[in-house]
Amino acid sequence: MKTLIPLLCTLTLVVACQNQSTKSSDTATNHSENTAAIRQVMLDQQQAWSNNDLEGFMQGYWQSDSLKFYGQSGLTKGWQPTLDNYKKSYPTPAQSGELNFELLDISPIAQDAYWVMGRYHLARTVGDAHGSFIVIFKNIQGQWKIIADMSASDH
Amino acid sequence: MKTLIPLLCTLTLVVACQNQSTKSSDTATNHSENTAAIRQVMLDQQQAWSNNDLEGFMQGYWQSDSLKFYGQSGLTKGWQPTLDNYKKSYPTPAQSGELNFELLDISPIAQDAYWVMGRYHLARTVGDAHGSFIVIFKNIQGQWKIIADMSASDH
Repeated sequence: MKTLIPLLCTLTLVVACQNQSTKSSDTATNHSENTAAIRQVMLDQQQAWSNNDLEGFMQGYWQSDSLKFYGQSGLTKGWQPTLDNYKKSYPTPAQSGELNFELLDISPIAQDAYWVMGRYHLARTVGDAHGSFIVIFKNIQGQWKIIADMSASDH
Repeated sequence: MKTLIPLLCTLTLVVACQNQSTKSSDTATNHSENTAAIRQVMLDQQQAWSNNDLEGFMQGYWQSDSLKFYGQSGLTKGWQPTLDNYKKSYPTPAQSGELNFELLDISPIAQDAYWVMGRYHLARTVGDAHGSFIVIFKNIQGQWKIIADMSASDH
């Protein structure tokens, strides 16, 4: 028993250290999984938007009062006000049209956070619309969610 | 000696746990220090820019080929090309003018990363210019540096 305790302590420390090193190698190999998961969120958003399903589109965003959307009309705080703005600006399928995202850059910020820079294209009978965006994704309880969005329509 | 080893192991574990808890309380109390340091970087940038010191302004950015600047002319990768673009667009003090940042939101993304959303205002004899931006700051070797910037001039 006397020799068992230090052995157990050493084992605990070794396991703790191994956890650390497993974590960092996971980070590297998980990069492609992370970017694939993020792309999938944006594909789902594209599809929901193109069905004028704005609630569905908003599933890609963090459902929190701390969500920040920074656009033409300034800074909007919170998931519900962001959805309300979308509903006001895109009330019908003619206004929302068909959405296509063009992803120009996906880069890690931290282990659980990425940015995506890209272009959005709306094909619409009322006139097409295009613009640029950056969104910040964070992994929240295993799901990738947009926590911040800056969008600017073309001049 | 036999009793000393388990005691040492326990102490090591206790110290390790304390490090963890000190870390998280530091994180909370460091938030105001972090935002103050980030504001200072942007104040220094304002001053350098207003002296047409574009290299000085660029000290706020991560000096890396992985820096991303996303603006009017699309996506620029790297510190040097970003500086070159600034030099092309703002060659003289008349063009760069006096810069004022208006910071609308500073929010943490991770322990060592923040975003800043804001407005920029250029007071110039050749005509004022205004626009919106979001920058992502990361703490790199103890210094807060912009690793990504999206800027859009007003319509």
